[in-house]
Amino acid sequence: MSESVYNRKDRASVDTLRLLAVDMVEKAQSGHPGLPLGAAPLLYVLWTRFLKRDPLAPNWPNRDRFILSPGHGSALLYALLHLCGYGLAIDDLKNFRQWGSLTPGHPERDVTPGVEVSTGPLGHGLAMGVGLAMGERFMAAKFNKPDFKLFDHHVYALVSDGDLMEGVASEAASLAGTQALGRLIYLYDDNHMTIEGNTDLAFTEDVRARFLAYGWQVIVVADGNDLLSVHLALENAERDLGKPSLIMCRTVLGAGSPKSNTSKAHGEPLGAEGLAETRRFYGYGDQEPFFVDERVAKNFQTRSRACVPDRLAWEELLKQYAEKFPEDYAELTRRWAGNLPDLGPSLTFGEKPIATRTASSLVLNDLAKKLPEIIGGSADLGPSNKTVLEGLGSFLPLTPEGRNIHFGVREHAMGAVVNGLALYQGLRPYCSTFLSFSDFARPSLRLAALMGLKVIHIYTHDSVGVGEDGPTHQPIEQLTSLRLLPRVTVIRPADAYETAALWPVILERKEPVALVLSRQDLPILSPTAYPAILTGPARGGYVLSDSEGEPEAIIIATGSEVALALAAQKLLLGQKRVRVVSLPSWELFDENDQSYRESVLPERIEKRLGLEAGLSIGWSRYLGPKGQMVSVEDYGRSAPAQKLFEELGFTPENIAARVLGL
Amino acid sequence: MSESVYNRKDRASVDTLRLLAVDMVEKAQSGHPGLPLGAAPLLYVLWTRFLKRDPLAPNWPNRDRFILSPGHGSALLYALLHLCGYGLAIDDLKNFRQWGSLTPGHPERDVTPGVEVSTGPLGHGLAMGVGLAMGERFMAAKFNKPDFKLFDHHVYALVSDGDLMEGVASEAASLAGTQALGRLIYLYDDNHMTIEGNTDLAFTEDVRARFLAYGWQVIVVADGNDLLSVHLALENAERDLGKPSLIMCRTVLGAGSPKSNTSKAHGEPLGAEGLAETRRFYGYGDQEPFFVDERVAKNFQTRSRACVPDRLAWEELLKQYAEKFPEDYAELTRRWAGNLPDLGPSLTFGEKPIATRTASSLVLNDLAKKLPEIIGGSADLGPSNKTVLEGLGSFLPLTPEGRNIHFGVREHAMGAVVNGLALYQGLRPYCSTFLSFSDFARPSLRLAALMGLKVIHIYTHDSVGVGEDGPTHQPIEQLTSLRLLPRVTVIRPADAYETAALWPVILERKEPVALVLSRQDLPILSPTAYPAILTGPARGGYVLSDSEGEPEAIIIATGSEVALALAAQKLLLGQKRVRVVSLPSWELFDENDQSYRESVLPERIEKRLGLEAGLSIGWSRYLGPKGQMVSVEDYGRSAPAQKLFEELGFTPENIAARVLGL
Repeated sequence: MSESVYNRKDRASVDTLRLLAVDMVEKAQSGHPGLPLGAAPLLYVLWTRFLKRDPLAPNWPNRDRFILSPGHGSALLYALLHLCGYGLAIDDLKNFRQWGSLTPGHPERDVTPGVEVSTGPLGHGLAMGVGLAMGERFMAAKFNKPDFKLFDHHVYALVSDGDLMEGVASEAASLAGTQALGRLIYLYDDNHMTIEGNTDLAFTEDVRARFLAYGWQVIVVADGNDLLSVHLALENAERDLGKPSLIMCRTVLGAGSPKSNTSKAHGEPLGAEGLAETRRFYGYGDQEPFFVDERVAKNFQTRSRACVPDRLAWEELLKQYAEKFPEDYAELTRRWAGNLPDLGPSLTFGEKPIATRTASSLVLNDLAKKLPEIIGGSADLGPSNKTVLEGLGSFLPLTPEGRNIHFGVREHAMGAVVNGLALYQGLRPYCSTFLSFSDFARPSLRLAALMGLKVIHIYTHDSVGVGEDGPTHQPIEQLTSLRLLPRVTVIRPADAYETAALWPVILERKEPVALVLSRQDLPILSPTAYPAILTGPARGGYVLSDSEGEPEAIIIATGSEVALALAAQKLLLGQKRVRVVSLPSWELFDENDQSYRESVLPERIEKRLGLEAGLSIGWSRYLGPKGQMVSVEDYGRSAPAQKLFEELGFTPENIAARVLGL
Repeated sequence: MSESVYNRKDRASVDTLRLLAVDMVEKAQSGHPGLPLGAAPLLYVLWTRFLKRDPLAPNWPNRDRFILSPGHGSALLYALLHLCGYGLAIDDLKNFRQWGSLTPGHPERDVTPGVEVSTGPLGHGLAMGVGLAMGERFMAAKFNKPDFKLFDHHVYALVSDGDLMEGVASEAASLAGTQALGRLIYLYDDNHMTIEGNTDLAFTEDVRARFLAYGWQVIVVADGNDLLSVHLALENAERDLGKPSLIMCRTVLGAGSPKSNTSKAHGEPLGAEGLAETRRFYGYGDQEPFFVDERVAKNFQTRSRACVPDRLAWEELLKQYAEKFPEDYAELTRRWAGNLPDLGPSLTFGEKPIATRTASSLVLNDLAKKLPEIIGGSADLGPSNKTVLEGLGSFLPLTPEGRNIHFGVREHAMGAVVNGLALYQGLRPYCSTFLSFSDFARPSLRLAALMGLKVIHIYTHDSVGVGEDGPTHQPIEQLTSLRLLPRVTVIRPADAYETAALWPVILERKEPVALVLSRQDLPILSPTAYPAILTGPARGGYVLSDSEGEPEAIIIATGSEVALALAAQKLLLGQKRVRVVSLPSWELFDENDQSYRESVLPERIEKRLGLEAGLSIGWSRYLGPKGQMVSVEDYGRSAPAQKLFEELGFTPENIAARVLGL
């Protein structure tokens, strides 16, 4: 209980956090003073009394994770990291929000030591924490042994009104309840204030009752400024490992400033006068900006030092683990290093046409047996996406070693949860839904790209080939819109062999991958007939089938349209020498050197026809100045797929005619 | 109470709905039999005893609205529309899911009479209903008079497990609670079954408690197959006008079929044998497919006829209203017809640079005074988006005439709610958030495009010009990704005058508009210096500033980059004759005839530089074969905006150099 005695030194430390944060905002003339002033006590208690952490080894595997879901409160986090000794100097704080600084406007993983997760878009931090807690449970189930609790930590976050309003947070919170994630403990900065005014304007729900309904434990702290109350609530929360916890702390936005408890405290500097008044309120009226009292600095140092033994003990435990369980240890370190074992020979396929979603299912199931780090699932479309890992069980509270995650009909949170899983070292998570609904997960995928996370999004039912389900379910623009995202690799294989050739590439990528697959069966392009299909796909684009003699025209196609290109090439035999280029991935193809790209698409051959059941926008770079395109430029219709393809001109006959017309 | 007596005829009618639906699926060999078999009793009671409707006038303004939120249950809705006399023949049912039929795979507004809302992507139907109910309240507040309740109806929906799991539904349900939308009554098809299995896999929350937490009334029907129970629950729900109602009806997916209560009942035909067994179960073993007993047909006809007097009485009421309140009536009919009054002269601006978000705010506030049908708001960023209608009040339960909607931090539902408002005749709704978060609302915008709804999405903070908030808040790809959406007009004005010139165009568009605005101040391009700015913007692209004599090069720019283009043009005076083309909207520009487009971008001038603080993809069509681009191809950074623009090459000097290098 000595830990829970809070005295003047603690209060001074909290106020120092507050003032450092508002000083940063004032110096930058940009940022958010309101949250730090209100929520500093919550994070102070958490970081000095509860958080298992070590600034000397900020990434040790069994540390507690902390997420600042309302990322706009970054100044508070940086002040904490500075005082806790994470290598942020006072000059870094003074450089808040400047070009190249370690203290960007919103927390960015990989920029700032101690920042676990990039946050900013509300709701996502909350949702990614759910993935981190699932990661902890999964790794614990796999690697922990009696007396060797290698994975045994909490996932904490600060969450805000804005987070709780976002749909992605509702989805994730409901899933966390079903998953009974007792390691999840969220402090809710319940300040009743949003940008447009009091939360009464838009948010009158009973948050406590809502989270109880999800299956959470809810603890209410009437005064978030009372350190002991916050402390006892956190103790309480940790006692129940069966349920995630929401600790609702009543706080005051902009506490102690002249704008206290008004919307104006949220997102602009306090101004010189407001800042002076705030400084006086906290008893530092005579001090300069960025002042840190010696006792305060020492207090934080002491608290940080107190964390070291835990980490050292764990490292000792790991050493003993290595001796006692050498195979598990080898596997664990392999996974931490992100190394892949030999994946064995690629699958082969019969002659019967199969959908690329089916081929991908075969490959994924094969890989999942060899790579126990593969874990994932679908937003309740597993049997349709064909992303079920057969015989590998469901990931549920009583079966934490299960490899199939049931995300429910929650595409947006699914994307955020796999981000959390990817942030948890040692896992290769995937998720899946229809390509048409990739739009729902898009904000999560964007964050994955910003963080360089190796998540795999499997999107099936990839065109009007969906057929009867009609325009809401037929993706038209999604393939292109995914390609727009920087640092995301988009892959659309033509058949089973391309799918098999591309999965190892997916696993090697250092960034998110969107794998786009057909619902409908597609002819098998056997390596006997098309030897290039074994090695070509990895280059992103390649000559799948060439003409005899110098080609007069090139058909460039992706995915389900490649077989059509080959059929048109056949029709044109004797009339026109046609090369067929398969282009499963723009990003991969663009990474080749110029001479390879020129060998596939020689500048001199200007007669080019692009073929893709999606928008033509962006294709000009492959089609060149005189190329044309068979594409889909408007939303689809409800009808059998074959009929739709015919109506849209995706027939060998039409394609052949278009080639002749070039 | 006679209305609530249910007998064999009613049961036979329910079973006919069931069997027609599964016959349709079987004939199409595609579709969803599970939901109709389970939920037919709910819709039967609703449509025959409660729904204020008239097949002879399916769009009369005071009808109740009905939404099938799980749109995959379309066969049930079509069976109902057929039997209720909405003009769907039995042959239309037999043509289910075929090219050009009236019975597409998911319900499509404008394809099928009686379908109010296109549904398919789960959660959206539920959320759009919230907008419809807000529309009813707003129109009632404006036009109802004592004894003249012109607007006085309910909004009903069937909602499913999948709907309730989606974040957009959580957002909308929370908002509906705050808005106390007592006219909203949702029947929940609570069948405990999803595609991956029992809801226990992913959805164990206490739905009742959750909706109570939102401020809803919740009524539980233990057996959704018991018509009287459903009836009494609906009666009960209608009694409380102070809260939205969720009626949880325990149903059985695929009831009566061999796949009953299994996931397999959801999304594939029952098969000949399964269908025969189902037919036998319901006592129609001897009948052919698509059989409708005469008594059943008559029952539905009688029920539909019974609806007519209500509609006729309302039309009589409207006539009296026209006499007694001629001005209100004129205003109402103007709004129903979608006619705009004279909007008066365009605003003028001083010389001081202002952000286009600020200019838009001035114009929007001016228009809102003249057009009382304008209603809207922001996802809690009103003061930042500058979309607050000054002095026009907040739309809240006690102030239903308020014009400012507080959506809360709920971008996705915001998009769905404005769809609902647009579906409600007589309103011109808008919504707003940062451009970076347009991704969250994208699925709603896509549905708006599919339905041809005149919604206005205002997206501010439109580039790295956001500055310090960093990459999560800086849109890079969003401008392009919005342009990908067919049937959406994207507009990015260059300054205050372009903004003013384009707002009337926005109001005239027959499709969704995304208006993209700067956070940062931009120079005023005064009509004195640039006369073309008054009429040019409406054409989407125009010569803003030409060279003296035949131009040697063209700079094409949009939004905040137009002023830079002009600055570069000035720098190049005497060195290079440069034309500056402002291109605020691709969609508008592409609608011009070829000769106009050629006059702006003559083919002979091949030296072209594109200028946009976003991706270059898609620009080739304006840049031609030799054009180049100053663009942003990767995510942004946290730093002051000016610094970012410099680092990215958006300076007059660099642009001038690039022009010289063409």
